[in-house]
Amino acid sequence: MNPAISPQQLRRQIRNRQWTTPTSGSASGYLQANLVMLPAAEAFNFLLFCVRNPKPCPILDVLEPGQTEPVIAPGADLRTDLPRYKIFENGEFKTDLEDVRDYFAADMVSFLLGCSFSFENAMLAAGLPIRNMEEDKNVSMYITGRSCRSAGPFSANLVVTMRPMTPQQAVRAVQVTTRFHLTHGAPVHLGDPREIGIDNLDRPDFGDPVTIKPGEIPVFWACGVTSQLAATSVPLARVITHAPGHMFVSDLKDEDLTIL
Amino acid sequence: MNPAISPQQLRRQIRNRQWTTPTSGSASGYLQANLVMLPAAEAFNFLLFCVRNPKPCPILDVLEPGQTEPVIAPGADLRTDLPRYKIFENGEFKTDLEDVRDYFAADMVSFLLGCSFSFENAMLAAGLPIRNMEEDKNVSMYITGRSCRSAGPFSANLVVTMRPMTPQQAVRAVQVTTRFHLTHGAPVHLGDPREIGIDNLDRPDFGDPVTIKPGEIPVFWACGVTSQLAATSVPLARVITHAPGHMFVSDLKDEDLTIL
Repeated sequence: MNPAISPQQLRRQIRNRQWTTPTSGSASGYLQANLVMLPAAEAFNFLLFCVRNPKPCPILDVLEPGQTEPVIAPGADLRTDLPRYKIFENGEFKTDLEDVRDYFAADMVSFLLGCSFSFENAMLAAGLPIRNMEEDKNVSMYITGRSCRSAGPFSANLVVTMRPMTPQQAVRAVQVTTRFHLTHGAPVHLGDPREIGIDNLDRPDFGDPVTIKPGEIPVFWACGVTSQLAATSVPLARVITHAPGHMFVSDLKDEDLTIL
Repeated sequence: MNPAISPQQLRRQIRNRQWTTPTSGSASGYLQANLVMLPAAEAFNFLLFCVRNPKPCPILDVLEPGQTEPVIAPGADLRTDLPRYKIFENGEFKTDLEDVRDYFAADMVSFLLGCSFSFENAMLAAGLPIRNMEEDKNVSMYITGRSCRSAGPFSANLVVTMRPMTPQQAVRAVQVTTRFHLTHGAPVHLGDPREIGIDNLDRPDFGDPVTIKPGEIPVFWACGVTSQLAATSVPLARVITHAPGHMFVSDLKDEDLTIL
């Protein structure tokens, strides 16, 4: 982790295999993104899925077929500039690796979607607790019982992240995260997890469980992992995504995308 | 104009040809939308154009090919429930008419985009002047010198609406309209029109000129007409749009889409 490194330096180190670890907490203040690459023939339907579900799948950039240099990071190459990728074929996980130049094809489209790392900086600045950071764990993620709006063949239940805090802190967290509408924005739920189909907070579907202290309630935000569930809900010939925590780091600042 | 009519009643009257006039000021408080229908083969690129230019082209709903009942207005039919449409073929305007059932085909996709009527209600409620309403004219619209981000074959210069007000009122208008991020949001410019390539405010490209009083400055918002320029920037076999001012009236309330 290197908060002070620039996005350009970080991407260069990743491309040269000098950096192979998660990007969370590095290049602090710069927007990090989820990556999904899939065949152009299904790009309209997947883009529609994102448009119809903007809380979990906020669109930062979509590239034209075969393109790998996003507008939000001139000079970058999406095939080499993330530390780790996952490959799915026919809807099944196949492998993870550090470079997808042999997998990305001219008929594939790349999607960059917002990530909650952006509002975590703002939450810390507001003095709010981020329990998974305090406990040096991955954030707790759960597949809820809420269906997203489907689009063409793509469907998924909403995935959420959870951060415990007091009700007073939850009010402040709503205020702080509302501004970040392109990086998941305000919470989708707070309080009783059963209302959104989560039976046991101690057993997250992804990431680690964290401590909920007396007087705290769980607060839930929409999560970009929803887009991976949707992209792999269909047996497409090939889907490429970032590996969890190994995000694409752009040249945009978190603040560039806030609404106020 | 009938502020008190419900969206359902208004659409029924339109479908029965009992209502053939503009929708501005009617079904007050309900979200009205721009309509663009075009061939599914270009739907990905056009959706990409909208995603890349969210200020002029905020996406409210996109339907799957051949579908005409939007989620934001159950029971509605986009082929009959707008008072007037425009037909373009091979990039050229062909005709305008009140029903497009003979023109909309199973391989076409419908886009509903946000409209500034939503924030005009909020501006009036805040005591801000809307000069074109005061003078019973159409809002002044200008094609600026600013290029939108292109997508595939689609390109357009940004079109803006202009409303004159005092600098103090302009500050308040920024606050009021910022909340409406899916209906054009905050202004894109204020003050000297030449900075955005407008030479003469007395000669708008669409709509009517309005009076600018001493002490007032022009304030510019992104305009949905941009999407019509983009859709007709390519000689597509057929494009259908609403006629200016003859919008689609949805069941959503303006407030449903505000961010705060």
